[in-house]
Amino acid sequence: MKEPRRITVAAAPGGEESILWIGTGLLAGAAPRLVSPSGRFLLVSAAGSRAPAERIREALAGRILADIEMDDREEAKTLATVSTIADAALAAGVRRDDALVAVGGGVVCDVAGFAAAILLRGIAWNAVPTTTGAMADAAIGGKTGVDHPAGKNLLGAFHPPRAVLIDPEAAATLPDRDFRAGLVEAFKAAWIADADLAARAERDIARVVAREEGPLSDLLSGAAAVKASIVSVDLKEGDRRRLLNFGHTLGHAFEAAGEYRDLRHGEAVAWGIAAAVVISQERAGLTGADAARVRGALRQLGPFPSPSRDRGKLAPYLSRDKKSTARGIAGVLLEAIGRARIFETVPPEEWLDAAVRVRLD
Amino acid sequence: MKEPRRITVAAAPGGEESILWIGTGLLAGAAPRLVSPSGRFLLVSAAGSRAPAERIREALAGRILADIEMDDREEAKTLATVSTIADAALAAGVRRDDALVAVGGGVVCDVAGFAAAILLRGIAWNAVPTTTGAMADAAIGGKTGVDHPAGKNLLGAFHPPRAVLIDPEAAATLPDRDFRAGLVEAFKAAWIADADLAARAERDIARVVAREEGPLSDLLSGAAAVKASIVSVDLKEGDRRRLLNFGHTLGHAFEAAGEYRDLRHGEAVAWGIAAAVVISQERAGLTGADAARVRGALRQLGPFPSPSRDRGKLAPYLSRDKKSTARGIAGVLLEAIGRARIFETVPPEEWLDAAVRVRLD
Repeated sequence: MKEPRRITVAAAPGGEESILWIGTGLLAGAAPRLVSPSGRFLLVSAAGSRAPAERIREALAGRILADIEMDDREEAKTLATVSTIADAALAAGVRRDDALVAVGGGVVCDVAGFAAAILLRGIAWNAVPTTTGAMADAAIGGKTGVDHPAGKNLLGAFHPPRAVLIDPEAAATLPDRDFRAGLVEAFKAAWIADADLAARAERDIARVVAREEGPLSDLLSGAAAVKASIVSVDLKEGDRRRLLNFGHTLGHAFEAAGEYRDLRHGEAVAWGIAAAVVISQERAGLTGADAARVRGALRQLGPFPSPSRDRGKLAPYLSRDKKSTARGIAGVLLEAIGRARIFETVPPEEWLDAAVRVRLD
Repeated sequence: MKEPRRITVAAAPGGEESILWIGTGLLAGAAPRLVSPSGRFLLVSAAGSRAPAERIREALAGRILADIEMDDREEAKTLATVSTIADAALAAGVRRDDALVAVGGGVVCDVAGFAAAILLRGIAWNAVPTTTGAMADAAIGGKTGVDHPAGKNLLGAFHPPRAVLIDPEAAATLPDRDFRAGLVEAFKAAWIADADLAARAERDIARVVAREEGPLSDLLSGAAAVKASIVSVDLKEGDRRRLLNFGHTLGHAFEAAGEYRDLRHGEAVAWGIAAAVVISQERAGLTGADAARVRGALRQLGPFPSPSRDRGKLAPYLSRDKKSTARGIAGVLLEAIGRARIFETVPPEEWLDAAVRVRLD
């Protein structure tokens, strides 16, 4: 195994820092990098991540207090699943100095991280993401939580993992559709904050999609670095951090309007980015050439199923957005590739217009 | 209304400070002291606190987004109740800049505070305690949470209220048994950290129990100051804060063994204090005279129903204590009235021996 890349995410005041490890072969060498004050772990893994979970199980042999498998579809991202994990952890006699390890995609990381946040008012946890989306985004930064019938991620906590192990091999058996959808979050990170990474990833996109180790690791590692750098400055929902919501204002609405079934999260975000690019040209001075580059990359990551264009269906999810306040919805727009900015109070109508007009063909 | 006493509880790093207001007449003048960034409130009140809830409703007329009534018995302290509050809040369109107000006893403050902690990953909240126990203890310090079949307070979050309004009149209709049980927490605060307050409260105990305003306000205000001072130094579960657990190691076990039905929380803590006093004489040099003073006061607050003396029933709750680590159970003992200290790893057997031997007659 090559020496993995190590990135530190600064701690929230009073909290503990997160260490991100990125490299091929990390799964087998996981034990010394996973953090548990007591040395004991609770393993929470996805039904769809059996192979990487088995590697972690072997690495932690004899130190696993409870071994909990959960569903990894969006439908499982509920308070009821958190409760089930808590039940198993408490039945196993979890103590405050034990730690949880989540092995799975974004749903597993969000749900298991939230369970860690509320168990005994907070125990340590570690993330071993097994999807491209979770590697680029979900496992980093400390946002944990579950969905609610009223919308996505409406219940949760800020509770950063102590360690995140990003091993591209953990996504080896990920279906192509999920693999591609997850890469949208990695490109998003590049587009908002790292023009060089964006240029490399766009140039090598065919090799990334073909899962070629070099370009894939470069993109995931670059995306993780962008996210780490942003959340280190701003651990909660301040201005810097809101940049990460690029594509998510409409993305969440598209996802909800499709009842979390028609579109993968990354696919919904791809449409959300395409729509945000339309508004960015009008309001933020994004050039037609840059807009075309973003659309071109999204086309190569796709094709993605079409989202709902029904204003009446989308509108309620916009107004329920957590970033919505009395002042309106804060929108993230691109001024140029590699440079995003927050525009306060973009009117909901403008988002809905863009949602109806957006095309990726 | 006399000018209320104002006590500041320092913020956790990165958090917001809490302001405690203590005085008779605060309910009617609540509006300017309750904190909401948007000016809008979600009211969560106890079925048993209709009169004080009505005063808050009047004070906030026109600014209440949702009006939620919950059960205030220990049985209601569940994740399901948190979920019900979250449902109502989200259905009402809660935004991140709205705030919650809890009007009730410890159960309502703990549950509503926890709902505030996880709604949209955290909204502001305010506590208006209506029981002596919540005034002295539960509403202050930021511990929120719910029970689990495996034990009390096993799921939760640190999420301090922005304002706490302690008006002894809010407890006017509290049944005598609850009123007396809650005072145990106030005496506990005096015994661990304020010898003068303890001496005054013991001297005036008959007047306190008779709800005479002067001595009652002195005790509640002194207890709130003790708690505020301790949690200001140590917002999470460090050594100083653990002093507040005086009487709670066995108290929680007594309460659980009685299935949260036979004993009020304060009554279980009274027995826990009496047992801790036995161990304090043996291990911490507490004099017989001081031990007799504590027992005498507890007798005057009681008589309390007898707790379980069944070692087999109590033992599992001791080992599941959140303060239990690989090193054993950390016990809080009294060296003298007004001076508590943590003794690491008091063996569970010693607690169980004291539980079996303790008498208050």
